Amino acid sequence: MAHATVAEHAAHVAALLSPALEPRTESVAIDDALGRVTATSVPCPVDLPLFDNSQMDGFAVRSADLATLPATLPIVGEIAARPSDPLPLLPGSAVRIMTGGVMPAGADAVVPVEDSTDDGASVTITRARSAGEYVRYRGSDIRQGDRLLPHGLRLGSRHLAVLAAAGLTSVPVLARVRVAIITTGSELIQPGAVPSLGQVFDSNATALAAAVRATGAVVAFRSHVLDDRAAMLAALEQAAASADLIFTSGGISMGEYEVVRETLEPLGAKVGHVAMQPGGPQATAVFEGVPVICFPGNPVSTQISFEVFAAPLLRDVGGVAAPARRRRTLTAGTASIAGKRQFLRGTAVGESAVTLAGGPSSHLVAGLAASDLLVIVPEDVTELVAGDSVETWEL
Amino acid sequence: MAHATVAEHAAHVAALLSPALEPRTESVAIDDALGRVTATSVPCPVDLPLFDNSQMDGFAVRSADLATLPATLPIVGEIAARPSDPLPLLPGSAVRIMTGGVMPAGADAVVPVEDSTDDGASVTITRARSAGEYVRYRGSDIRQGDRLLPHGLRLGSRHLAVLAAAGLTSVPVLARVRVAIITTGSELIQPGAVPSLGQVFDSNATALAAAVRATGAVVAFRSHVLDDRAAMLAALEQAAASADLIFTSGGISMGEYEVVRETLEPLGAKVGHVAMQPGGPQATAVFEGVPVICFPGNPVSTQISFEVFAAPLLRDVGGVAAPARRRRTLTAGTASIAGKRQFLRGTAVGESAVTLAGGPSSHLVAGLAASDLLVIVPEDVTELVAGDSVETWEL
Repeated sequence: MAHATVAEHAAHVAALLSPALEPRTESVAIDDALGRVTATSVPCPVDLPLFDNSQMDGFAVRSADLATLPATLPIVGEIAARPSDPLPLLPGSAVRIMTGGVMPAGADAVVPVEDSTDDGASVTITRARSAGEYVRYRGSDIRQGDRLLPHGLRLGSRHLAVLAAAGLTSVPVLARVRVAIITTGSELIQPGAVPSLGQVFDSNATALAAAVRATGAVVAFRSHVLDDRAAMLAALEQAAASADLIFTSGGISMGEYEVVRETLEPLGAKVGHVAMQPGGPQATAVFEGVPVICFPGNPVSTQISFEVFAAPLLRDVGGVAAPARRRRTLTAGTASIAGKRQFLRGTAVGESAVTLAGGPSSHLVAGLAASDLLVIVPEDVTELVAGDSVETWEL
Repeated sequence: MAHATVAEHAAHVAALLSPALEPRTESVAIDDALGRVTATSVPCPVDLPLFDNSQMDGFAVRSADLATLPATLPIVGEIAARPSDPLPLLPGSAVRIMTGGVMPAGADAVVPVEDSTDDGASVTITRARSAGEYVRYRGSDIRQGDRLLPHGLRLGSRHLAVLAAAGLTSVPVLARVRVAIITTGSELIQPGAVPSLGQVFDSNATALAAAVRATGAVVAFRSHVLDDRAAMLAALEQAAASADLIFTSGGISMGEYEVVRETLEPLGAKVGHVAMQPGGPQATAVFEGVPVICFPGNPVSTQISFEVFAAPLLRDVGGVAAPARRRRTLTAGTASIAGKRQFLRGTAVGESAVTLAGGPSSHLVAGLAASDLLVIVPEDVTELVAGDSVETWEL
């Protein structure tokens, strides 16, 4: 990939990451599973409801005993909603029952308390009930062995609720992809430090970590290294030991002090240019079997490169919906470089228009933060005028 | 609220929760701030870029020295992207500079390396550059004191990146609402236990905890209590000590063993009926200054009550977008009870239709899990036919 198009490099990255993104299954506690994606379908281990029970506070009866009305039946006991193994209901009697109480053998209907009068010893019922009325039968919601949840489902609260209702404490979900992030550059210091002239705060570590998490993946390792090959090798070793894939930023240009290129090129890295702006320099490698995707170091280049080449792949595995991509109308024109795909920044104007914002330079990190759209200008377009339709990606 | 409409009870709950949902500010580390909402606007503490620097690998020059071309200038040094305080550039000379390198005083343009030839000692330049070309000026992205981020912004990776770029390590965000959850009922056991006849797995604790988290709030306390007033009081004490508001499930009907009603009614709880199905029994209270919203115990009633009365309020504070609510066309008709708002379950059919699913009973927790929409039937509607338009809420 000395020179590649965006589509070619995207396909190359997808192929390189494919083994690392193979779905793996892990079991997580249902209380930790919100937003996770089921790795298999989940069969129901029990009948739900677990047993025949009353849908109302009232009296469990034999419906046949209501053939002649009014019917007055002796109250032979009480069944609350709690552990109980009630005696069978004999013909010609009623038992007081609470919502959720176990239906006694022999009873086949519940008379709601509001449709009855009782003196404590007997109950008088004036309305007939057919068999099954106000009874929640065992298995009437779902039967043991039926599919409780499908494969590939993003778990919301109602799904976790039914897992709990079935007595399950964990659920098989797609394992989160473990990502390592290595930012490079001797000019970078961490936020909170006091910069000397020539030093810049490292925003790429924060940007990549948050962007990775937003796709449903986890950051398993994170480090910043100076322009020092030994330090870079050490960081790569740690990254490869703890993650499924590695992202780096910086150090892949043709200038001097390009630590990523200098470290990985002897190990077979492919370093080159992609016909895009920002984000032209791009590289890939495999380090100890772990794919390494190397982004350029300018903050806007890093962030847009991640969004273009990595985010769609990670979202697919993470079960996270992709931000909307739709066409909008430019409010003003602009020029573009022939042969390069431009990823300009813009802000939405109403439902269908977009205004370019923030300038095209790849250091304009505040401009990017103030934007809410990427505006894509294809390789063969050199001029756009107000009213032209452009593809936009929500950020 | 012995008897209330859905709208009346929703307004009552909103008023009761209002003090607990007042925005409070907390400072969180930028690495923990993804998805949080800014509590104030954030001014930029520095100029970005921090200093004038080169946009390219090349040579820093005085543009006036390129008036006659080709211009051959002695190379007087090198400025890398790292801490440095370069000497001023004297007229008639050039300094090798890397992308991000500090521009020396006197230099006002950068000649990209690809537009030059050099022998190490001197560089020959064949193309004129105007002042400012390929220079990133201090403050050209954002100036110290300008607004870096607005108030009320849900933080994405690009926003966290610009905070880091400005050297900030934390950000003021809206504090998460702290919620306590108490489920009640002597018939309930926790998932994973072995049920005796009459026992049911508690799905409400899981459902409410996940639904609370999905709104951006946190679960600060969670307990299940048996039908025992002393235990309920103890749980309420702990809940009130640790949370901004309390949700309970179960124990508010008119039957016996109604532990929430029996505990809170003497303390002034309002217990009554809302004209809705499922979810008719509803109650509210204030316990030691903390609002208590009491939902009925049937699992579907609990979940729908939370979605109707609590979720919209919590999402507003949590900065979480509400699920879509739109009208769809029924694929088949149904009857509805006069005077009650029905919240039926349905599944989407294409973009614009909905099929009722899962049955209306409030114990059908698997049916709810298999649905993706709530279908709202207004109080005054008793019959719907295929093709009728109904309001639907995405779950």
